[in-house]
Amino acid sequence: MGNPILVEITRGNRVESVHRGAVAISDAQGNVLFALGDIERPVYPRSALKPIQALPLVESGAADAFNLGDPEIALACASHSGEPMHTNRVAAWLERIGLQEADLACGAHAVRYEPVREEMIRRGEEPTRIHNNCSGKHAGFLTLARHWGIATSGYEHITHPVQQAVAKTLGELAGIPEDLPWGIDGCTAPNFALPLAAFARALARLAAPQTLPPARASAAGRIIQAMTGHPELVAGTGRACTTLMRAGRGRVAVKTGAEAAYAAIVPEHGLGIALKIDDGGGRAAETTIAFLLDRMGLLDHDQVAEIVNPMVLNTRDAHVGERRPAAALREAPLPWLSNRTAAQ
Amino acid sequence: MGNPILVEITRGNRVESVHRGAVAISDAQGNVLFALGDIERPVYPRSALKPIQALPLVESGAADAFNLGDPEIALACASHSGEPMHTNRVAAWLERIGLQEADLACGAHAVRYEPVREEMIRRGEEPTRIHNNCSGKHAGFLTLARHWGIATSGYEHITHPVQQAVAKTLGELAGIPEDLPWGIDGCTAPNFALPLAAFARALARLAAPQTLPPARASAAGRIIQAMTGHPELVAGTGRACTTLMRAGRGRVAVKTGAEAAYAAIVPEHGLGIALKIDDGGGRAAETTIAFLLDRMGLLDHDQVAEIVNPMVLNTRDAHVGERRPAAALREAPLPWLSNRTAAQ
Repeated sequence: MGNPILVEITRGNRVESVHRGAVAISDAQGNVLFALGDIERPVYPRSALKPIQALPLVESGAADAFNLGDPEIALACASHSGEPMHTNRVAAWLERIGLQEADLACGAHAVRYEPVREEMIRRGEEPTRIHNNCSGKHAGFLTLARHWGIATSGYEHITHPVQQAVAKTLGELAGIPEDLPWGIDGCTAPNFALPLAAFARALARLAAPQTLPPARASAAGRIIQAMTGHPELVAGTGRACTTLMRAGRGRVAVKTGAEAAYAAIVPEHGLGIALKIDDGGGRAAETTIAFLLDRMGLLDHDQVAEIVNPMVLNTRDAHVGERRPAAALREAPLPWLSNRTAAQ
Repeated sequence: MGNPILVEITRGNRVESVHRGAVAISDAQGNVLFALGDIERPVYPRSALKPIQALPLVESGAADAFNLGDPEIALACASHSGEPMHTNRVAAWLERIGLQEADLACGAHAVRYEPVREEMIRRGEEPTRIHNNCSGKHAGFLTLARHWGIATSGYEHITHPVQQAVAKTLGELAGIPEDLPWGIDGCTAPNFALPLAAFARALARLAAPQTLPPARASAAGRIIQAMTGHPELVAGTGRACTTLMRAGRGRVAVKTGAEAAYAAIVPEHGLGIALKIDDGGGRAAETTIAFLLDRMGLLDHDQVAEIVNPMVLNTRDAHVGERRPAAALREAPLPWLSNRTAAQ
């Protein structure tokens, strides 16, 4: 019982800690081509849901109506590090739609990118809601409400048309007609729980425009183009999502989520990948997604080796252990790499 | 297969993440009175080993020879937060033994206590090795080498008499005659792997002075007195170890370790408690040890309720979920709370 161990951390010649989890790779028809662990239990994708949360913004015509560029679309899908390239763009975007920081429903938190964080401390600057890593997603929600000419206040509530549009879009993509269970995310927006198999299928549909109505197909393509064209806006300096998309050179869009979710969209194969580490350990989610995409031949290996199999260093920078894919992950046959039938 | 789920994190009305782990409670004779999960697989206690790593310092007479007080003994057992109460004392201690920061083998890292960290950034101060959370342990190692009149350089190597004394002491307390496997800790000192059952037994022997030779019994008592008498020096402001020892009012000494180890010494019952969360998630280690000690009636419940069962708040401080002991932990019979025979 329980999901398999996907990643292990060693110290000396022993395994010190292990991370269990589940992975699903699906096509747009819902065929699961690869599975590890329980892919039917609903999980919260958290921020890995953002590419789908951004879909109504583009599909509705709101993005075009406000002349949003790919950078804004990328930010709508981002968990950004609070660097000036992120916060300046979100601030300008809010201005463009006639709104301001106080209209964002997300809370303030310290920025993730250490040099900016330290500079703000030196200057005595407090973080604002624009520094929230989800501020681009929220700017997207607000843009949609403005486009529809409806109240922006309360846009973060499950009953607001913006969130209802997200729920409907996700349900359609995932092939789940009934209402999805939901919880409140770190940024106050609803986040919807669904099985990894269904989430992977939803991601695959973004990768397979021929399975979508024209407006949605076009929006999906725009989102993938924006994310892969601006990897630094989707996360930030030194972050895994940014490194992985750079190493993929446009072949894959990826998005992490809190509590160790990860999503990937692979247009050339028409596939979606969804994973969740049981314990919320983000380090293991990064190693798992990097390993899988690397094994699928989608990445420049040298750029991601440090994510697949990083050294554990101590405070004197001595190499004292490593993080690595565990046997269940390492030895799982990826179907398009062997002559076996699908692992599922 | 696999250890039981000890702690779960919820969001909305669903479990979002889970942490598996193992716990052993033993007496000094090695009778396991309570066990969850695999307690025979060797694990690294990491900093939870510090009370035992400090034993040779006191038992040898080195602490008395250099007139160390309880604050220094507490710091030798500490993973401190880098507050002035910690760093000033370690600096003065090094001076007292005629050494300086450069003699510490641990590396520098940013201090954990946020107000001090920010103040250092504002002043442009870089952390030194004295700010390393293990600097007290290292000052203790150096004091022992000085007392023995041997080279202090290289004191962090497994072959140095100081580390050999630690290894011998741990092996004796744990009842393991053969050499223990070891790895290098974050601070460059060796850390020894042993089964949770054996580690719990070693901790229990500190709690049962009648089972020890007089010099060791006295040293163990001194260490427990120093830790429980100075909870703020063993960790720091707002930290779990500090809160738990305050809530225990001298009845229990506790020590956390990296990658989610925890140790507790319960003198009134002559028991030791050792636990390790499989995935290294420290939040789950804190909830597990707090729950167990609280259930054993050793803590002022109100002071630890926030560690046993904290709310998960979002960036707007809304209550979006909780962290709680899972069924395997919640429903496990603690032998001295029921009429059942020992769970083991």
